[in-house]
Amino acid sequence: MEREEALKIVKEQLTEHRYQHTLGVMETAVLLARQYGADEQKAELAAIFHDYAKFRSKDEMKAIIADQGFPQDLLEFNAELWHAPVGAFLVEKEAGITDREILAAIRYHTSGRIGMSLLEKIIYLADYIEPGRHFPGVDEVRAMAKENLDQALIKAVQNTILFLLKKNQKVFPDTFYTYNDLINKLEA
Amino acid sequence: MEREEALKIVKEQLTEHRYQHTLGVMETAVLLARQYGADEQKAELAAIFHDYAKFRSKDEMKAIIADQGFPQDLLEFNAELWHAPVGAFLVEKEAGITDREILAAIRYHTSGRIGMSLLEKIIYLADYIEPGRHFPGVDEVRAMAKENLDQALIKAVQNTILFLLKKNQKVFPDTFYTYNDLINKLEA
Repeated sequence: MEREEALKIVKEQLTEHRYQHTLGVMETAVLLARQYGADEQKAELAAIFHDYAKFRSKDEMKAIIADQGFPQDLLEFNAELWHAPVGAFLVEKEAGITDREILAAIRYHTSGRIGMSLLEKIIYLADYIEPGRHFPGVDEVRAMAKENLDQALIKAVQNTILFLLKKNQKVFPDTFYTYNDLINKLEA
Repeated sequence: MEREEALKIVKEQLTEHRYQHTLGVMETAVLLARQYGADEQKAELAAIFHDYAKFRSKDEMKAIIADQGFPQDLLEFNAELWHAPVGAFLVEKEAGITDREILAAIRYHTSGRIGMSLLEKIIYLADYIEPGRHFPGVDEVRAMAKENLDQALIKAVQNTILFLLKKNQKVFPDTFYTYNDLINKLEA
């Protein structure tokens, strides 16, 4: 699918604010793909579609998680996590994207997972550091992303866990398994 | 077993510094047991024996973990975690303590677990806040422990995870699951 067609499809799904965020993720993902040797076109498409399901109702997302064989424990955690796997499902079903790497990058862009692919790492990180993001610590991760993708990703995941701990919120198991997995590989 | 006999047994296993820590945990655990309605004698014995295996060699601890059916992933995490389950095993075998609640409190005093008993919570927390402990945040947890055992425990587990994240160290899954479980019960 061409960029313009993809953008047209997602624009209808998103608020203007979220569409601008998506453009930022797209630019950032393409730059990261170029720097770290991933497929730039796949990075572009995954970025464009990463938040496709962001504004679906909780009821629709719940029903898809229940019906489509996603891990049911998702429903016990923050609904913020739901749009990622639901998005991967709907992007295939409604937009006709069938590339497994792109769909996985959408599916895991919020939680991460053990054994993330290069493309998955790029989308996770681009979502975190795109130019429209402003929160404590983001500049540090931006700087790290220019030097070392994995170290930047570790910092982003650490910050995410810290943020949840400080708010007395639960941490989705895939997120801390992602963290442990990245530390394991750093040490290896 | 009487306190004096138990103390005599552990004194032989520990450095003087660690023995003094053990006395602090014992005092603190008894006070917490009194305040929160746990069995004071079990709290005393569990505290006295909690670090029984602290100075066993890594090789001996590894062998016990491998041979006694403990979760093998323990071996992929910091050796600091090993003395707790190994201690529970050796306290039964060598000191003849057979009370399952006391042994569980020893076993889970470092990692925590889902569904901790009152006694397990008391030993975990007493180990964290005994008077000989001096580190950032400990006074806050001490103050909380006088008001609400679970909230103090959550803060202690959060601090432990934060400490590991800041050192780029892996977090043992049981520790995360303990945190999520405590938050779940707080919300319920």
